[in-house]
Amino acid sequence: MSAFADRHIGPDTTDTERMLGAIGYGSVDELMDAAIPEVIRWHGPLQLPAAATEPEVLAELRGFAARNRVLTSMIGLGYYGTHTPGVIKRNVMENPAWYTAYTPYQPEISQGRLEALLNFQTMVCDLTGLSTANASMLDEGTAAAEAMTIARRSSKAKSMVYAVDADTLPQTIEVIATRAEPLGITVEVFADGQLPQEFFGVHLQYPGASGALIDHSALIEAAHAQGALVTVAADLLALTLVREPGAIGADIACGSAQRFGVPMGYGGPHAGYLAVRAGLERTLPGRLVGVSKDVEGNRAYRLALQTREQHIRREKATSNICTAQVLLAVMASMYAVYHGPDGLRGIARRTHAMAARLADGLRAGGVSLAHDHFFDTVTAVVPGRAASIVAAAEELGVNLRLASEDRVGIACDETTTEAVLANVWQAFGVEPSTVEAEALILKRDSDFLTHPVFRTHHSETAMLRYLRQLSDLDYALDRGMIPLGSCTMKLNATSEMEAVTWPEFANMHPFAPAHQAAGYADLIDQLEAWLAEITGYDTVSVQPNAGSQGELAGLLAIRGYHLANGDDHRDVCLIPSSAHGTNAASAVMAGMRVVVVACDDTGNVDLVDLDAKIEQHSDSLAAIMVTYPSTHGVYETGIASLCAKVHEAGGQVYVDGANLNALVGFAKPGKFGADVSHLNLHKTFCIPHGGGGPGVGPVAVREHLAPHLSAHISAAPHGSAGILPISWSYIRMMGPTGLAAATGVAVLAANYVAARLRDHYPVLYSGNKGLVAHECILDLRPITKSTGVTVDDVAKRLIDYGFHAPTMSFPVAGTLMVEPTESEDLAELDRFVDAMIAIRREIAAVAEGQWPAGDNPLVNAPHTAAMVSGDTWDHAYPRSVGAYPAGVKRVGKYWSPVRRIDGAYGDRNLVCACPPPEAYA
Amino acid sequence: MSAFADRHIGPDTTDTERMLGAIGYGSVDELMDAAIPEVIRWHGPLQLPAAATEPEVLAELRGFAARNRVLTSMIGLGYYGTHTPGVIKRNVMENPAWYTAYTPYQPEISQGRLEALLNFQTMVCDLTGLSTANASMLDEGTAAAEAMTIARRSSKAKSMVYAVDADTLPQTIEVIATRAEPLGITVEVFADGQLPQEFFGVHLQYPGASGALIDHSALIEAAHAQGALVTVAADLLALTLVREPGAIGADIACGSAQRFGVPMGYGGPHAGYLAVRAGLERTLPGRLVGVSKDVEGNRAYRLALQTREQHIRREKATSNICTAQVLLAVMASMYAVYHGPDGLRGIARRTHAMAARLADGLRAGGVSLAHDHFFDTVTAVVPGRAASIVAAAEELGVNLRLASEDRVGIACDETTTEAVLANVWQAFGVEPSTVEAEALILKRDSDFLTHPVFRTHHSETAMLRYLRQLSDLDYALDRGMIPLGSCTMKLNATSEMEAVTWPEFANMHPFAPAHQAAGYADLIDQLEAWLAEITGYDTVSVQPNAGSQGELAGLLAIRGYHLANGDDHRDVCLIPSSAHGTNAASAVMAGMRVVVVACDDTGNVDLVDLDAKIEQHSDSLAAIMVTYPSTHGVYETGIASLCAKVHEAGGQVYVDGANLNALVGFAKPGKFGADVSHLNLHKTFCIPHGGGGPGVGPVAVREHLAPHLSAHISAAPHGSAGILPISWSYIRMMGPTGLAAATGVAVLAANYVAARLRDHYPVLYSGNKGLVAHECILDLRPITKSTGVTVDDVAKRLIDYGFHAPTMSFPVAGTLMVEPTESEDLAELDRFVDAMIAIRREIAAVAEGQWPAGDNPLVNAPHTAAMVSGDTWDHAYPRSVGAYPAGVKRVGKYWSPVRRIDGAYGDRNLVCACPPPEAYA
Repeated sequence: MSAFADRHIGPDTTDTERMLGAIGYGSVDELMDAAIPEVIRWHGPLQLPAAATEPEVLAELRGFAARNRVLTSMIGLGYYGTHTPGVIKRNVMENPAWYTAYTPYQPEISQGRLEALLNFQTMVCDLTGLSTANASMLDEGTAAAEAMTIARRSSKAKSMVYAVDADTLPQTIEVIATRAEPLGITVEVFADGQLPQEFFGVHLQYPGASGALIDHSALIEAAHAQGALVTVAADLLALTLVREPGAIGADIACGSAQRFGVPMGYGGPHAGYLAVRAGLERTLPGRLVGVSKDVEGNRAYRLALQTREQHIRREKATSNICTAQVLLAVMASMYAVYHGPDGLRGIARRTHAMAARLADGLRAGGVSLAHDHFFDTVTAVVPGRAASIVAAAEELGVNLRLASEDRVGIACDETTTEAVLANVWQAFGVEPSTVEAEALILKRDSDFLTHPVFRTHHSETAMLRYLRQLSDLDYALDRGMIPLGSCTMKLNATSEMEAVTWPEFANMHPFAPAHQAAGYADLIDQLEAWLAEITGYDTVSVQPNAGSQGELAGLLAIRGYHLANGDDHRDVCLIPSSAHGTNAASAVMAGMRVVVVACDDTGNVDLVDLDAKIEQHSDSLAAIMVTYPSTHGVYETGIASLCAKVHEAGGQVYVDGANLNALVGFAKPGKFGADVSHLNLHKTFCIPHGGGGPGVGPVAVREHLAPHLSAHISAAPHGSAGILPISWSYIRMMGPTGLAAATGVAVLAANYVAARLRDHYPVLYSGNKGLVAHECILDLRPITKSTGVTVDDVAKRLIDYGFHAPTMSFPVAGTLMVEPTESEDLAELDRFVDAMIAIRREIAAVAEGQWPAGDNPLVNAPHTAAMVSGDTWDHAYPRSVGAYPAGVKRVGKYWSPVRRIDGAYGDRNLVCACPPPEAYA
Repeated sequence: MSAFADRHIGPDTTDTERMLGAIGYGSVDELMDAAIPEVIRWHGPLQLPAAATEPEVLAELRGFAARNRVLTSMIGLGYYGTHTPGVIKRNVMENPAWYTAYTPYQPEISQGRLEALLNFQTMVCDLTGLSTANASMLDEGTAAAEAMTIARRSSKAKSMVYAVDADTLPQTIEVIATRAEPLGITVEVFADGQLPQEFFGVHLQYPGASGALIDHSALIEAAHAQGALVTVAADLLALTLVREPGAIGADIACGSAQRFGVPMGYGGPHAGYLAVRAGLERTLPGRLVGVSKDVEGNRAYRLALQTREQHIRREKATSNICTAQVLLAVMASMYAVYHGPDGLRGIARRTHAMAARLADGLRAGGVSLAHDHFFDTVTAVVPGRAASIVAAAEELGVNLRLASEDRVGIACDETTTEAVLANVWQAFGVEPSTVEAEALILKRDSDFLTHPVFRTHHSETAMLRYLRQLSDLDYALDRGMIPLGSCTMKLNATSEMEAVTWPEFANMHPFAPAHQAAGYADLIDQLEAWLAEITGYDTVSVQPNAGSQGELAGLLAIRGYHLANGDDHRDVCLIPSSAHGTNAASAVMAGMRVVVVACDDTGNVDLVDLDAKIEQHSDSLAAIMVTYPSTHGVYETGIASLCAKVHEAGGQVYVDGANLNALVGFAKPGKFGADVSHLNLHKTFCIPHGGGGPGVGPVAVREHLAPHLSAHISAAPHGSAGILPISWSYIRMMGPTGLAAATGVAVLAANYVAARLRDHYPVLYSGNKGLVAHECILDLRPITKSTGVTVDDVAKRLIDYGFHAPTMSFPVAGTLMVEPTESEDLAELDRFVDAMIAIRREIAAVAEGQWPAGDNPLVNAPHTAAMVSGDTWDHAYPRSVGAYPAGVKRVGKYWSPVRRIDGAYGDRNLVCACPPPEAYA
């Protein structure tokens, strides 16, 4: 096995032998032979290059980097040069305490990033002048598409027409159009304020793609008069100087926070944003951080209004977004915290001054401009000369936007220097200007970022400490195991992460000429080819920038395939009752009707019910969407038969790749009957979860679906290209043998945990020979019934023991789903198992009446340091039992910063921006 | 002021105004005019380039980097290619929690790095086979020189001859010779085991500089028979395969831990090591970590045997080392933790196999080799052809060692690849070999690194968590203020740190041909010139790799000057009684006699006593050595007169630059009368303290002393060149205005703290108009006398309040010296002052009998979480007073991991290696 695989895989040979011994197998191969149904088992090494060492891979990455030629980008279109403050780059983007954290579903141990996200929401609200913003979207394009569906849902107008201003970013229009079609919405692009006759919503861009700054107030008023809702896509930096969307009547605002310190990364990842006026907050998709309190009444943050999320609403959801862009939203919010309102205004003024001076020089040189008013972007009208000017600029190291054969766009940003302006003027053949000019209209007259958090941490020392303080509140993989079923929280190795912040990868504009991005092209081609080999599909696209987007892309390909075959009646998507809610939401977004297939008593898809449903919808069957191994953590033996049945009935088979970590090297969905899958690079392929994003969700299809893949599922051509080096490195360093070994050890670890815990907690489902796949479901329902101790109590008590809880109540309410992954060594697995057994003993003590049901270490968990060191203690158990249960070290213990949080209180009293300082008193 | 200066300097304009108001000055300039004696005041901007922004500086650094051409280095001579494991690079070398920590003088809040250093000591002991190792030396050369003085001190032989094997690294011989001369020791270099007639000690290298592996057992026996001590310089990687020095009779071992994952950095920094056999432990210079216990009896680490250190022993010390290489020792120890004994052996075997195969190819091609037995280095005998072969290799991207015109040295290491071997063979014009060979003798037959810590953290996940756990135990600048007098714990900005880990800086061999290091040369030239401008001297050398080495270099220059003038009787060095002990130790090492000058009641040098001492030693006066501003934190007005008096008497003036942070931009030692200074780049110029190193201590001299600067004060020509980009960046980003502003705010902050605390704690000394310089001494002696509460109690209680203590009992016993620096903002200064005032109230409560003298929050400090959450509590005050005194937040509090440590216990029961696992039970 490769040197790196030995580092990535937690258990060493001795550990592995002990684990195999505990479950009664002689080797990992023997275990895998027993666990995986032979009908889908694939033998033989993956056709991938042999493993390279970490230094070799870094050298190869430097080779790719050297083939990327990063010019000064003035292309604009939503992607701008920015200076990531060093303190943020090093202590957020390159810090495992931030990037290895999970989505804050356990809010007690996520207060740090929840505060950072609340800062993000506050920043977006302040800058847009709207009342509620969520904790990030995947990019500006998809945020705009989500705005469209909010408008459709909330508009009183009956029309299915969505009117989109022609001066919107071209890629945004494409993404909106892609999303509109399956929903029956017609996109009408209008120019010069000439709205169509009827419409339910309007999308405006502000400043426009051309740079034009226009006062849309009258148009918004007119739209409102028709009962339509208005979305304004707006640039956050511009909003520090120009009037905010809320002040001119916008209902919704969307856009990107990229230029707030997040590198362009050839298109991503960076945080899109979405904000709505009062009254629309409950229609907001995605994750919303809110303020609530813990059982002692102390302020505590947590995700608010979770009932809006598709894992609750399923096919009634209007959005499928799960993973957002948390790490990047944190960076952008910290950029605002570090610069503060005055700093941001200063950056905006300087950027504008550069653009205005640039414009003056062009005008003085006889170049006419398309607009008099702009913020940072100037469009030069140069009939017939655009291409030659863009070429001349490229020679001088600057990329301009070739807007048409007659027009050149030039976007200034924080990084624009005198030397760059000089090059642009030279490319146009005009003389430099030194005239200080201004070209703003519609100036902002309201204050923003007035909260102290944006006015306190302006020295690097203060900023460093704020970042440390917040990250210290949180539990991430750098502290211990996060055994989340279906989320595959494995090692995010440093060597995988290194290249992400190299300038050659970080500073590339997504629309830079292809010949400048040859390194990226090679890396992406290789990665797509390797993923195709691993999954057995013919074509892979890395464009979808989250699993949800991969799902939608895959389902849209199925839809396109049926339509191309004239099967426009095929719109039923079968989904097992155990499926993740996102599946159903995605199906609806792809214009399908969801029909649920039952599961049998053993947790498998009920093949009899499947037959019945196929029979019932035989004419309209579009697809079946299943996860494999199932969300129950089992290798279902019926999978091949299931695929065959659906194919026979004319349907397509979608296999959700969330659990691919149990298949790599041992089975290929593309070979055992599936037509399409999405993968989660942030699960199986080591992209860190970042506290809830970024993710990458490539879509993989068989040949017949390839022509139907959408080109615009995300805003950027290659989605979150900037983090693809992570997955590329993982595959390159593991090699075929290492990848298979990882799968084997992941399955071994799950079975080891199941075996050790089975006598204490029933393992709900298993497959061949009683084996689970890479995760196992512990059934707490009998315990809850007999003792009153809930899944929540166990999850929160695990915090006291130094663990992040497993997945709670998914896919089965009242259970815990444990996925240990291959990266946890035996000592950590045993520490977890021992903690669970100790908790089981505590439950028994409650059952036996040793502790009252209302006052015991479980129901009071988590215990904070403040609680156990309080001057009074009137609990039924000693402080030490609360604070240091069996096996917990007294030195260096991780303490939950708050006690159990009352989520419902916060939902009833919704506060989604930083509370005023008085509230902290 | 520059954008960066605004980030570096904590207080903003509003803060500054408030602080000025509090002390009654209208502007910083007015304050500085009042504080600094006009006679030394220098006006006018420094002639330095105007400040550049952070991105501009990073771009300039990339320019330097591009002018460094990093070839594969096979030069050897103690510097080898190595792979820094990514997890160590990112989470130690690039992590502020490690690099901004101070020397662990407050052991309770330094347990993490103390454990790491104990691992280092254990590793060195195990590999060398000796019983005690210290926590690092500055480099191999100075470690060898320290070994010589240990030998002189401990040998029964009367001889003053030190016999050095000719196959020792050439730079080691030079450093030994430099150190020997002023001590009256004669170095005799011997070859082929032919020892001189008489000697007190022998230095051997093993394997030798030539690569030769020789069994020195008989020679060691012969030396011992003469009563001499034997030092073996040994390569740690080689020692995993060949017999350890302790096993062949060595008394002392020294060397470098560089190739354990620390980049070459053009010469440094990396950790030298020094180990001794039983019986010599109390002669070990430098810092030694030992195991002791806290007041509850729990294991706790702290620095052991501190009485050996020169700040206690002063002129009786035989070494002046203070700063060591803690950060790099931590890295090296973690490399061993991560690889474990098997991993290290594997690396060594692979390295040896490469060398053996290389040798086979050369021999087969008719090239004769100087030795049959070697570990990693082969010396080829190629009469007359050496230069052309080295040139041919350079063409192929490989640097070989030009050992003589007839000999070429070729050193293999962890990074040597097949492709590199092929290039070497090609350069010699021979065919490749595929023969697996072995050329070892004297194989090791003992086990090593048997402690579990070296056998546990082998997956990257486990390693990451171990690093996080340790760093979480410690308090560093990323948590809060470290107000250490004379240590200037200011911001270490990320942009300053960035370039250090770039391969173009990190991977350069110190003896690479100069034309390959043009970027380094330019950077060093600029930095030396800027430091000369700042200090007013004519010549600066950055070679000394710690302040102590800079002192020695400066004093040796004075010695050389007097000798050149025929004044060989001038050997008296006047040192004020308030001086740091290192000054006295350095003077002795420079062959001088120390004569103490008294201080007057106001803490200033007593000019009357000075006159008397000058009179008394008029013929033999060599120098005076003073710190300015004084170690009492005062701008002494008599400084100019002092300089004049000494010069008149024929002496030279040495101004210790430890307090240069109070002078930059306002006074220049080289202009107000001093002849020589050393600076501390890790104080004034932002190199992070790293938990006790690295440091850089450039020596700055006036023209007449320049010819007398030693070329070999440290092993590498440019000392710790790898971290010079830090100080270069600081000066470049601050610019002349920013640097002066920093000085002004540092002085303002000290005066603000003094003013706010003066009513609560007497400020011991002040200068003009009652002003202090950049630090102030709080006199606790009256409080201790009246209440029994000690400096220690206050220092430990500050931990409960979330602070690192100020400097304790230096320069005056029973006091605390506070240096806030310019990087702390007003909120943090106030938090500190408020804590000190709250502590004063606690002291009053003790004095008033509210709490017993033996049981109060001061004497019991620091309070651990385990203590305040204990099941029983029988103290005279509530838990909350112990845990959360006034103003301490209940969320995210930093907890000391242990209670107060009993240092004396550990000194009586000396344990300086990892205790066996049973001991942890």
